[in-house]
Amino acid sequence: MSHDSHDLFENRKQFQIERLILFSDAVFAIAITLLIIEIKVPELEGKETLLESFNRNHTYNGFLGLALSFAIIGQFWTNHHRLFGYVNNYTIRLLWLNLHMLFWIVLMPFSSALVSKYFSLDSVWMLYSINLFMIGLSLYFLWCYITNPKRNISHIVHDPINAKMSRVRSITVAIIFLSGFLLCLFDWYPTSLIARYVFLLIFPAMYLIKRIYRPKK
Amino acid sequence: MSHDSHDLFENRKQFQIERLILFSDAVFAIAITLLIIEIKVPELEGKETLLESFNRNHTYNGFLGLALSFAIIGQFWTNHHRLFGYVNNYTIRLLWLNLHMLFWIVLMPFSSALVSKYFSLDSVWMLYSINLFMIGLSLYFLWCYITNPKRNISHIVHDPINAKMSRVRSITVAIIFLSGFLLCLFDWYPTSLIARYVFLLIFPAMYLIKRIYRPKK
Amino acid sequence: MSHDSHDLFENRKQFQIERLILFSDAVFAIAITLLIIEIKVPELEGKETLLESFNRNHTYNGFLGLALSFAIIGQFWTNHHRLFGYVNNYTIRLLWLNLHMLFWIVLMPFSSALVSKYFSLDSVWMLYSINLFMIGLSLYFLWCYITNPKRNISHIVHDPINAKMSRVRSITVAIIFLSGFLLCLFDWYPTSLIARYVFLLIFPAMYLIKRIYRPKK
Amino acid sequence: MSHDSHDLFENRKQFQIERLILFSDAVFAIAITLLIIEIKVPELEGKETLLESFNRNHTYNGFLGLALSFAIIGQFWTNHHRLFGYVNNYTIRLLWLNLHMLFWIVLMPFSSALVSKYFSLDSVWMLYSINLFMIGLSLYFLWCYITNPKRNISHIVHDPINAKMSRVRSITVAIIFLSGFLLCLFDWYPTSLIARYVFLLIFPAMYLIKRIYRPKK
Repeated sequence: MSHDSHDLFENRKQFQIERLILFSDAVFAIAITLLIIEIKVPELEGKETLLESFNRNHTYNGFLGLALSFAIIGQFWTNHHRLFGYVNNYTIRLLWLNLHMLFWIVLMPFSSALVSKYFSLDSVWMLYSINLFMIGLSLYFLWCYITNPKRNISHIVHDPINAKMSRVRSITVAIIFLSGFLLCLFDWYPTSLIARYVFLLIFPAMYLIKRIYRPKK
Repeated sequence: MSHDSHDLFENRKQFQIERLILFSDAVFAIAITLLIIEIKVPELEGKETLLESFNRNHTYNGFLGLALSFAIIGQFWTNHHRLFGYVNNYTIRLLWLNLHMLFWIVLMPFSSALVSKYFSLDSVWMLYSINLFMIGLSLYFLWCYITNPKRNISHIVHDPINAKMSRVRSITVAIIFLSGFLLCLFDWYPTSLIARYVFLLIFPAMYLIKRIYRPKK
Repeated sequence: MSHDSHDLFENRKQFQIERLILFSDAVFAIAITLLIIEIKVPELEGKETLLESFNRNHTYNGFLGLALSFAIIGQFWTNHHRLFGYVNNYTIRLLWLNLHMLFWIVLMPFSSALVSKYFSLDSVWMLYSINLFMIGLSLYFLWCYITNPKRNISHIVHDPINAKMSRVRSITVAIIFLSGFLLCLFDWYPTSLIARYVFLLIFPAMYLIKRIYRPKK
Repeated sequence: MSHDSHDLFENRKQFQIERLILFSDAVFAIAITLLIIEIKVPELEGKETLLESFNRNHTYNGFLGLALSFAIIGQFWTNHHRLFGYVNNYTIRLLWLNLHMLFWIVLMPFSSALVSKYFSLDSVWMLYSINLFMIGLSLYFLWCYITNPKRNISHIVHDPINAKMSRVRSITVAIIFLSGFLLCLFDWYPTSLIARYVFLLIFPAMYLIKRIYRPKK
């Protein structure tokens, strides 16, 4: 193969990877924007003010659910952004692992709308937690796949500690969401309350893992 | 033409092809994400639990239809991804063949919602099968067009066996979906049941075709 | 400026143009895919078959309107694709001329849904025609702007005949849609019927203009 | 690091920035196109004409709100387009500052639909103004972040006057929208009327700021 045709081939491969990434981004962007569709413009009844009708229609819960889901999808997107920063090859299996992850992203507007509408129902939070757990798990699969040196997908393998840290971080996120689900199983008020805020553990957990693998000098 | 202006022209052409591809990806991404819009958040009645209301509203069928359509559109997207991996030129006819394919993709959220709502109706599966058949057929047209050496669209022609295999594979997918439609024509229970699962033939068929054209050494 | 920093600057400028184009593509793609949202899944009443309910709900008109709008937006997209194939510079005014065009594209799902629902109403076709006329007109403005050698936007000016042909073609498309509007003003059955099919003139008109500017040798 | 691997690394970083930008564009494009979803196709009652039903359903207000929101989001997009024209590095904080801005963009279809439906209500305009204020403010944060030489995000620092002008402009836009909110607080007809048109101040303000920082020679 001549130098030029090798360059062409390499460019083409790079573009095929970029296409995979930009397709994922489009799905992320649509899912994150569709969240707003589920917040309906309220019908004002009688002499009601706007804020009163927001109260009656649980629109505040809608905003809360939107903000939460936006932040979580945003967090997953930045993770995906970092993940594919290491990818410089692709296989049909990578395409499908990525599509699998996108499937759970696509479900988010539905789960998020459920949570916004039935804020106090435990069953709804279980469904929401399962959805987030599946996104986290599928991202973990992706991290395992690309950091596996045998797959020849990524140049991250040059740094095994970094690769391990990334895997540990993504499985931790998944486990935190799973525990949100498990806590709802107990028919006891405090656990179901904790279940709603358990995701806040992500921030200290991420910091801790970073410190363990990259101790301050 | 100087070397530099030739490079500029070549870059511009490459970007025009990329634009065509990314536009297609956007349509794919939107169609695949709109699938979720058709699954409505149920209204809880009385002391009903969430799962009971899912049952009453056929939400499970909705998830099933969503998962099926997601997988099939995903399969078509990976095919499209591979197809345009070979394209390094474009014509106005290529643009229209691609738009034709996208038209049938755009119909998918509607067909998929129909199937989710009227799971047991044969007529609905016929419409769904026809839609999938048309996507498969339009992809077959695209493969024929770009693997035709006279069109000067692709460098795949260097490998006529690969080109032929790709054409055979895409027409096979189309035929499988068509047979799903034909099986529904018979007013007999077993055939209409088979019609719903006939798409599973795609996996062994793809494997078989690969083995025929690229026998294991 | 050193050679390297000039290259960086040039790359950045190219990307800013690409961003403008890909943003437009995203709007095109969303508008073309949202067309399907307006076709509602029908509710089957009594022992009605699917096709009977399509008939009752005017779903066929919905498909017709969808196919028509898809083809027309597709035609505008291929035009936009060709237009920006000549652009190699940008100004804030180009951004706004493009946004102006996108505004009328965004209105399409609404106009198209109106036409699908009230197929027989003249007023609806007038609105639809005005929408298409405005898209055509804004594309004409874009062609005029970029083919104007003073603006230094494009290298198309090297071929003044090509530039003129493109301007004539885009204003012709706009005029044809305007005549569809004007024909609806007459309260006479045949003219309002012609108004619905006047867009078919685009195909011979485009061919004719091509032959005038580039006669067969 | 060899020259080649440095190039590869640099290309990868450039693509990561491009990905961030194109993701933002997708969100902008979807939010701007979803504006049309809130304008419902009216149901004609009795012998009503189309324009009469538009009148009854306040569809004209819908169009007005759509045009206004489209222009404002378009203005924010061109600002974002210019902003990221200066970015040639990225940090996790830049990703989150950008996501924060996108959150307020995603809210726009809701605020815009509120304004279209309850044109005469002051509370609705206050919400709309707050939404626009938050977009403006988050863009101001972005400008501050990237023009800060310590962050090493941008090469705009070579031109401190330009950087300062951009910051002043974006905070001015935010303040104008905030004043629209504040004017609605007074329970007096003229101020609430002015509040609806206060955004028009943006055009002279932008011109003025440009003249102050870049006086005509």
